[in-house]
Amino acid sequence: MQHLDILIYAGWIIPVEPENTVYEQHAIAIQDGKIVAILPSDEAVKRFSARITYRLNTHLLIPGLINAHTHASMTLLRGFADDMPLEKWLNEYIWPAEQAHVNESFVADGAKLAIAEMLRSGVTCFNDMYFFPDIVGEIASQAGIRATLGLILIDFPTAWAKDSNEYLQKGRAVHEQFSDNPLIQTALAPHAPYSVSDISLKAGKLLAEEFDLPIHMHVHETTTEIKDAVKKNGERPLTRLKKLGLLSPKLMAVHMTSLKNEEMDLLEEHGVNIIHCPESNLKLASGTCPISKLHEAGINIALGTDSAASNDDLDMLGEMRTAALLAKILSKDASIIPASTALQMATLNGAKALGIDDITGSLVPGKSADIVAINMSDIETQPIYNPLSQLVYAVGRDKVTDVWVAGKHLLKSRSLTSLDIHDIKAKTHLWRDKIAATRKPS
Amino acid sequence: MQHLDILIYAGWIIPVEPENTVYEQHAIAIQDGKIVAILPSDEAVKRFSARITYRLNTHLLIPGLINAHTHASMTLLRGFADDMPLEKWLNEYIWPAEQAHVNESFVADGAKLAIAEMLRSGVTCFNDMYFFPDIVGEIASQAGIRATLGLILIDFPTAWAKDSNEYLQKGRAVHEQFSDNPLIQTALAPHAPYSVSDISLKAGKLLAEEFDLPIHMHVHETTTEIKDAVKKNGERPLTRLKKLGLLSPKLMAVHMTSLKNEEMDLLEEHGVNIIHCPESNLKLASGTCPISKLHEAGINIALGTDSAASNDDLDMLGEMRTAALLAKILSKDASIIPASTALQMATLNGAKALGIDDITGSLVPGKSADIVAINMSDIETQPIYNPLSQLVYAVGRDKVTDVWVAGKHLLKSRSLTSLDIHDIKAKTHLWRDKIAATRKPS
Repeated sequence: MQHLDILIYAGWIIPVEPENTVYEQHAIAIQDGKIVAILPSDEAVKRFSARITYRLNTHLLIPGLINAHTHASMTLLRGFADDMPLEKWLNEYIWPAEQAHVNESFVADGAKLAIAEMLRSGVTCFNDMYFFPDIVGEIASQAGIRATLGLILIDFPTAWAKDSNEYLQKGRAVHEQFSDNPLIQTALAPHAPYSVSDISLKAGKLLAEEFDLPIHMHVHETTTEIKDAVKKNGERPLTRLKKLGLLSPKLMAVHMTSLKNEEMDLLEEHGVNIIHCPESNLKLASGTCPISKLHEAGINIALGTDSAASNDDLDMLGEMRTAALLAKILSKDASIIPASTALQMATLNGAKALGIDDITGSLVPGKSADIVAINMSDIETQPIYNPLSQLVYAVGRDKVTDVWVAGKHLLKSRSLTSLDIHDIKAKTHLWRDKIAATRKPS
Repeated sequence: MQHLDILIYAGWIIPVEPENTVYEQHAIAIQDGKIVAILPSDEAVKRFSARITYRLNTHLLIPGLINAHTHASMTLLRGFADDMPLEKWLNEYIWPAEQAHVNESFVADGAKLAIAEMLRSGVTCFNDMYFFPDIVGEIASQAGIRATLGLILIDFPTAWAKDSNEYLQKGRAVHEQFSDNPLIQTALAPHAPYSVSDISLKAGKLLAEEFDLPIHMHVHETTTEIKDAVKKNGERPLTRLKKLGLLSPKLMAVHMTSLKNEEMDLLEEHGVNIIHCPESNLKLASGTCPISKLHEAGINIALGTDSAASNDDLDMLGEMRTAALLAKILSKDASIIPASTALQMATLNGAKALGIDDITGSLVPGKSADIVAINMSDIETQPIYNPLSQLVYAVGRDKVTDVWVAGKHLLKSRSLTSLDIHDIKAKTHLWRDKIAATRKPS
């Protein structure tokens, strides 16, 4: 009999790899933060003993969810401005609030709030884009969650940096600061085609190439963005990015609404990853990303919540459900983006986009023990005919009871083990009063 | 000082009437199941004492949510068949399962499961359409929830009735059975234009007129339905209903996708109520109801979840959010269906459609104490800039802590007081095994 760190017995396990598979009455064996085996419970009893054993017979285990597009610290701006289009929302509310308030402690307190919310809803990895990525990295590291820090690049001065040289210089330093951290990696994060010049993009590309970084960028978020670009540059943003050599399997293009057929071909040809943020796109009426066509073409599509300021939650279970429902109506076919595909987008595809699918994104031996346990015994998830369909269409995030990242038990029977929730709430209240006092009346 | 039954102090109250209003630090005074006053907390302290006083300082109170289209007992078929279009879903899965299993105990056990789920998510009233409405009425009455029982009418034999004469005869008996029950009313419920003949509809209309009943009917659910009708009758279903004299303020037309401009005019002219079920329409890829145009035209729009078999929940907070998000993208305007309008659709507009807006649907003195308390202190709903926007865009149904219907405390700190949740779960497991055994492999 082999002795292990952790053994989790579960009613059901959905490993994501192989696709569309549900193991019943199985166990996951964990050693040194990694999955050693997934096997039937009756075999596990004979083969393994463990320092800690969990018996979750009414629970479903899934791989940790990957939120592939966040601005975590903006959770402090949840509900700050609503029911208005992107441009007004950004120019009259969000950007002024950010200019007035964003500093190191805003970023730290906002990141803690976001990470607490994400862990409580089964997210084990997030792909962030914001100012002071070093602070986000420190908070994520303390919390024990996996993160990709966007090395933000934008052509206007902020509290973080004054020009593109300083953005890149600071980005390089952040990359170096976290280069030995097993849970934290970095990505170059040029904000968007409309906010970063060709010169800045070229300089950013050099940095990304030097360290083999993924590139995380908003692209084609709204038709206004596209129209303005055509007016200014005589070409659509995607065409411009192609000319700059930015289309590649390294690129995570976020939003991607209003795509022409030839643009979809371009994405396929260059192996670009799409980060689909359906709820933010709906709430800001930005547009829709044609994910059923892109998926059929074999393009990798991951999911993100975007910031809580335009969603207004960081709930990847909800995002997965919205992605499936929206794709069905847009393609007029209820069989499009079935539950198994939606779950893949929220897990393995995110890991692929981030270049870490050798480490996480599915429950297979050798990968990190990034695991979420979901209680399926409440009436809201009964009866159970198909746990996979139940997960996508009926499970709410309040059913997430336990979360492990690299074998560390970060959410334990719904209690956070690495974050002080009372302190987070107290700081959030202080920020709320400070920020509300400067809000323009609507 | 006046002595009362119940006094509830709350951090915030959103009364729905007047629209777009949030009272801070107010109290609701309740006597004999009715709201007596809503007033600032510091005044309430001086004016009232009560047998039971609740101090919910971190909570928001809203009117009970009205689920304006359900097939409650079908909750036993949640997740039974997914990721397929309406016609296949109905013909190959749902109808065969119903033919094999629907009887009095299926309806009773399914209704209990549904009512438990609805109470736990803030629904205080539901508008049901199913077989054995007498059983649904008895269960609802025992549970203390408000309900409108659809007197189902359909042109094929079921366990409930063999032909339209028997459906109507039994419907009349159900109406008489509940005529003295203050929480239960009935509606004539012809299933859909494609499943009820002109002769049956005319006979049904006479019954509805005799008792002044609302009429609850699926209309224009899919384009297939409309195409088939044009082929068969030479006219679209709505035109046929108009000729039969069924378009009136008494009609609750459910779904209403694929509407022509002249059909919208017709709905406006006749004062027809629309019951919008966005999540079911998305999941079955049925089509979209143009609620922003209908709302602008002054047509009353209420919301329903439809059955848990095509949703897959009975979550009206979620439905409200989906309605707002979907309307924004369809109309390409993020300001369309703002939070206050979405909340109205989920409360007051449902009461209007059911003809009970003198009794429920908003928190105003004289109306029934149908009240929902929502805990706003968890991190998922922090910070709070605008409680109304937070309610629609960030609150999940797990934040519902307490529910009163006509002053009766049916959900108390998340525990059901009138339903045995262990018994419900046990019976649901039995049905699950029985039904799964007869399921066609997908």
